[in-house]
Amino acid sequence: MSSTNEAFRFHHDVTVRFRDIDVAGHAHHADAFIYFEEARWAYWLEVVGRGLDELDYVLAEGSVRWHARVLWPQAVRVGVRVSRIGRKHFEMEYEVRTREGAKLQSGRTVQVMYDFEAGRSKEMPADLRATLTAYDGPFAP
Amino acid sequence: MSSTNEAFRFHHDVTVRFRDIDVAGHAHHADAFIYFEEARWAYWLEVVGRGLDELDYVLAEGSVRWHARVLWPQAVRVGVRVSRIGRKHFEMEYEVRTREGAKLQSGRTVQVMYDFEAGRSKEMPADLRATLTAYDGPFAP
Amino acid sequence: MSSTNEAFRFHHDVTVRFRDIDVAGHAHHADAFIYFEEARWAYWLEVVGRGLDELDYVLAEGSVRWHARVLWPQAVRVGVRVSRIGRKHFEMEYEVRTREGAKLQSGRTVQVMYDFEAGRSKEMPADLRATLTAYDGPFAP
Amino acid sequence: MSSTNEAFRFHHDVTVRFRDIDVAGHAHHADAFIYFEEARWAYWLEVVGRGLDELDYVLAEGSVRWHARVLWPQAVRVGVRVSRIGRKHFEMEYEVRTREGAKLQSGRTVQVMYDFEAGRSKEMPADLRATLTAYDGPFAP
Repeated sequence: MSSTNEAFRFHHDVTVRFRDIDVAGHAHHADAFIYFEEARWAYWLEVVGRGLDELDYVLAEGSVRWHARVLWPQAVRVGVRVSRIGRKHFEMEYEVRTREGAKLQSGRTVQVMYDFEAGRSKEMPADLRATLTAYDGPFAP
Repeated sequence: MSSTNEAFRFHHDVTVRFRDIDVAGHAHHADAFIYFEEARWAYWLEVVGRGLDELDYVLAEGSVRWHARVLWPQAVRVGVRVSRIGRKHFEMEYEVRTREGAKLQSGRTVQVMYDFEAGRSKEMPADLRATLTAYDGPFAP
Repeated sequence: MSSTNEAFRFHHDVTVRFRDIDVAGHAHHADAFIYFEEARWAYWLEVVGRGLDELDYVLAEGSVRWHARVLWPQAVRVGVRVSRIGRKHFEMEYEVRTREGAKLQSGRTVQVMYDFEAGRSKEMPADLRATLTAYDGPFAP
Repeated sequence: MSSTNEAFRFHHDVTVRFRDIDVAGHAHHADAFIYFEEARWAYWLEVVGRGLDELDYVLAEGSVRWHARVLWPQAVRVGVRVSRIGRKHFEMEYEVRTREGAKLQSGRTVQVMYDFEAGRSKEMPADLRATLTAYDGPFAP
């Protein structure tokens, strides 16, 4: 069993911090979104080539499945991919695994393209659509 | 418009902290699970009458919709209810609103009854089922 | 024993969150700075009448003494005061107590007045010095 | 200028998370204690050879100096050392630097040896004193 899930082309390692652990002895459940986020930003920085200054989406929906406890100390491997692109939004999927490949958490987020200056949603830019499709597509319509 | 959503019998106020606010100027998206949790614990302490020592469930699934930015400073009002009880699990629903009633976040979590000593899931205890049903039921089968 | 320490004129209540509690069963030690911050902001909003848009200082130094464990659930009462004003900085002191008055944490932070546009420290404005002195002064030179 | 400060024999890298960044665009000031803690635990795991199950101290005092903003994305290097051992306590010092060596944060924590079962402080065990002294000593009396 490998931690590099073949369903994901992009992976990012996140070190679990002592502070993540709650009274039950495992990472607090909300930290799943933190691990997803670290991987999403790594994807954005490395695959898309965009940093904080060029952020043009907002999170609209998200879901998590907690499959097993995230223990400390360890670094987990997060698989992340774009799974669908709509006219004004795109979806991403995530899987958090131990380095030995055991599935810990999985989930999905929906991002809506957003024009922060105008204060409203906008269409997915063609160049971004092309970049995401070239890396993780083709996507189901 | 009232912040006391009539779909929820139980409400709990949570003060947004400065630390919740991220670089975008609003509460970080993962904090939705923190606000849900504060309300879930208040429900557990007040409605069920159980504290940390009697915890006998684990989180299996959760989802969030981010409707609007959570700004600081303010206290938000979180509605929480049990929405379904299965043989070994139960579901809870949440709504986070401003004190004026604007919807900010909504979501749902699925809890699985868990025997921490035995290390496995267990059936929903009859007395807990009765307490939850008396307060928030009847539930759809 | 009262939780309203007479050495402090201003107090602010902070609700301990479940997420604050770490594997040792008490609030994580770094959260002392969060509790201080909540009280400092309340002081700034209520005593000084300034919000986030008018922030003109940065933190330079801070210290904490952990006197007793911060347990959950509870709301703690934080006393906060300005204890000294220099030419370009000011100091604040904090005490976190249970509602029954038991001392939990105490500390101090040093703030340096900062011109964010110019990117350098600046002198304490005369009107701010007057406001702080009227409320918490006179201060030792 | 090297990020491996020669005053410290032990260094540990911590990846700054997006969640660490607050509305001012840099890591929240309380996170200094988190970065110190990550390095302290790494020291404890690697130098002392003790994990969570053998923890026998509590934090009594801590202080931080914020020298420069901690920006994202980056991994910072934390130097950590034991700087003094008393009869029932020991002190640790920390320095957080960029990989290029710029000093970001420094600080100190005081730990008191603690018998969690008995619920009271205890003397520094001779073997622990020997291990710490062999690695980071000799210490001033």
